[in-house]
Amino acid sequence: MTKPLRLGIAGLGTVGVGVLRIVRKQSALLTARTGRAIVISAVSARNRDKDRGVPITGYDWEDNPVELATRDDVDVFVELMGGADGPAKAATEAALKAGKDVVTANKAMLAVHGQALAELAEGAGRVIRYEAAVAGGIPVIKSLMEGLAGNEITRVMGVMNGTCNYILTRMQSSGLSYDEVFEEANKLGYLEADPNLDVGGIDAGHKLSILASIAFGTRVAFDAMELEGIGRITIEDIRQAADMGYRIKLLGVSRMTGRGLEQRMSPCLVPCASPLGQLEGGTNMVVIEGDSVGQIVLRGAGAGEGPTASAVMADVCDIARGLRLPVFGQPAAGLKQATPAVSATPAAFYLRMALQDKPGALAKVAAVLGQNGISINRMRQYDHDETTAPVLIVTHRCVRADLDRAIGAMAETGVVEGEPVALRIEEV
Amino acid sequence: MTKPLRLGIAGLGTVGVGVLRIVRKQSALLTARTGRAIVISAVSARNRDKDRGVPITGYDWEDNPVELATRDDVDVFVELMGGADGPAKAATEAALKAGKDVVTANKAMLAVHGQALAELAEGAGRVIRYEAAVAGGIPVIKSLMEGLAGNEITRVMGVMNGTCNYILTRMQSSGLSYDEVFEEANKLGYLEADPNLDVGGIDAGHKLSILASIAFGTRVAFDAMELEGIGRITIEDIRQAADMGYRIKLLGVSRMTGRGLEQRMSPCLVPCASPLGQLEGGTNMVVIEGDSVGQIVLRGAGAGEGPTASAVMADVCDIARGLRLPVFGQPAAGLKQATPAVSATPAAFYLRMALQDKPGALAKVAAVLGQNGISINRMRQYDHDETTAPVLIVTHRCVRADLDRAIGAMAETGVVEGEPVALRIEEV
Repeated sequence: MTKPLRLGIAGLGTVGVGVLRIVRKQSALLTARTGRAIVISAVSARNRDKDRGVPITGYDWEDNPVELATRDDVDVFVELMGGADGPAKAATEAALKAGKDVVTANKAMLAVHGQALAELAEGAGRVIRYEAAVAGGIPVIKSLMEGLAGNEITRVMGVMNGTCNYILTRMQSSGLSYDEVFEEANKLGYLEADPNLDVGGIDAGHKLSILASIAFGTRVAFDAMELEGIGRITIEDIRQAADMGYRIKLLGVSRMTGRGLEQRMSPCLVPCASPLGQLEGGTNMVVIEGDSVGQIVLRGAGAGEGPTASAVMADVCDIARGLRLPVFGQPAAGLKQATPAVSATPAAFYLRMALQDKPGALAKVAAVLGQNGISINRMRQYDHDETTAPVLIVTHRCVRADLDRAIGAMAETGVVEGEPVALRIEEV
Repeated sequence: MTKPLRLGIAGLGTVGVGVLRIVRKQSALLTARTGRAIVISAVSARNRDKDRGVPITGYDWEDNPVELATRDDVDVFVELMGGADGPAKAATEAALKAGKDVVTANKAMLAVHGQALAELAEGAGRVIRYEAAVAGGIPVIKSLMEGLAGNEITRVMGVMNGTCNYILTRMQSSGLSYDEVFEEANKLGYLEADPNLDVGGIDAGHKLSILASIAFGTRVAFDAMELEGIGRITIEDIRQAADMGYRIKLLGVSRMTGRGLEQRMSPCLVPCASPLGQLEGGTNMVVIEGDSVGQIVLRGAGAGEGPTASAVMADVCDIARGLRLPVFGQPAAGLKQATPAVSATPAAFYLRMALQDKPGALAKVAAVLGQNGISINRMRQYDHDETTAPVLIVTHRCVRADLDRAIGAMAETGVVEGEPVALRIEEV
């Protein structure tokens, strides 16, 4: 029997407690599967005395996660504090420099500092594993990096923020407004301290940028992502989309094109009969397409104690079993700096706007679309009591840049109130 | 750069040709990902001169797969011939004894000889990898063995025979009879040379027995599987199930219970709104449930050149990257011999029978069910022109053994014609 694998765990929130529970409850199983004992040497968190429902008296305590990360009796530093910078980054760097492997659930840190951390890890002969950083319990990093390693990846898509999917599906089922459901989610504790991380698409964007790096062999480039949150989606959009056979999802899509790397996290329409369209509540789904495999769909809980801790433990087991890979699947030094490409893959778009209720208004809008090469597939104007008329247009396939130019030109017609909402209809 | 990984490929059917294509087309990608070149030293097949659409003149030829498997210039023997015994087994054994790693797509060989082959491999310090043996391109072996290694697995389920799912969904969409769709599938080349491998559930049963071994740490026990094919499913069953909100799927279910290991491959009813219920055509789906992760659903193409070759190449890449594990995830010598347990997890059942059209017949059947502790949730008798009346019963949750006893007793009433069809309604 190989000697035990000794963990140092920093961060004892929901996920950290879940990891403690698995290590305690499943020790026999973990040993049978990995051939060695998995033990916890020490832990660290902000508050030592908080009741977490699981005893921590059996482990050494460190106030400072950097001290924890560099202890002689720690083989693997398990970083569950979160945050792109600050203690998480400092302790991760200290651990790698001290020759420890790192397991983390920290998508923000990897999305922002992934390249530098990977170079540091690989220079020190250490690994960083982060299955828990993307899509909770779904083994998506492993599936993409290892299970589909024989494929040229053609597209990676995903619904990877459970809070946004909860809000959108709850609007659909309840008929409540965005603001009402947002408040409800807030009361249920579903939102991050900074809600814009969720509803602004940042959290999901972090995840997508990590997947894109693995899929396309490029340096993580979160700052090049096109980001659009769900804050402008109205109950009317949800209803209209449903009426046409679609659901609205905060969908991440990344593909490598001749022009460069497309990375987009935005509300999109997807067919309600598709696996993505059928995804309800907080569940996550990742769709990976490869030249040989076709389409693989992975679905599971994207957050929560058990699922996220399951992913952390998968990484710990891999390390215990001696399964070691470069951080992004190939040596960080060889990852290419991708040229960011604005989405130019043609698609149909859903377009909602408020038209001034006066003769010729609709004709002006239609003319502007035509002048910009956008042809109309469907158009509806609704009955209304106000001075502006709600108008909904579904375009034929077009390029987003052309549509944006048309939307810009609409402002000059003087008949459109406010900013139109344009949502891509993603072909899934 | 590490030295090249040299493959010897035996079997140049659909999958073998797919592997050749990936190795030729994606050599730069494979090298970037694994850190070494992946090359083919030699190939073997029944017919050297067949036009396969891809040249094989660049590789040495062996008539005898055993010779291929033991060549000095082969590091990994890729077995794509199929068949539980015969050349596939002989060459696999020879390869392991000669110190080669093995990659195979051969579910029958692993289901029947998995334990002995695993012991042989591990004794020789070699690996056998078989991602392609279960659910085609879906990385299910890797997800279960590695990605969910921190979980006590509570249930593994799957629709893993695309031909059966094609037949059942085609009956649903076309209204054609089983025999008609069977003939159609035969003409389309969807059926194995021995169709019972497909429609008898044997092929899918092989796959489930492999998943059960990994999930529960037990020796593969295909011979202990409860097997039932789809041959008795009528278009009327499909329609009645649909009418109640269900789809009929050839569904494999395995769980470890206090009584022992349940392994069952049989036609079941699943809710049409569930991911399993929505699975159309030849697509496969595996559902894995663990104590921490909850439910993970994996979906993708279960067969075909590209998807199956993708899985073979995932295994080849793992070996090239030095990722090595015991054949079933933990040392074969330590795998327990599971006690086979007849399915005794309670479920509701769908029951169809032909009643003689005479007074009191229905009462007799209902009485027999009650005497055996089976209570009725719904019952319908249909309008008919024949001397027997079609009757459909949905039971409340009960144990299969009780139902079987009731079905036995029905025969003695003298009012039931032929053998009733009983299908489990699986809670998914």
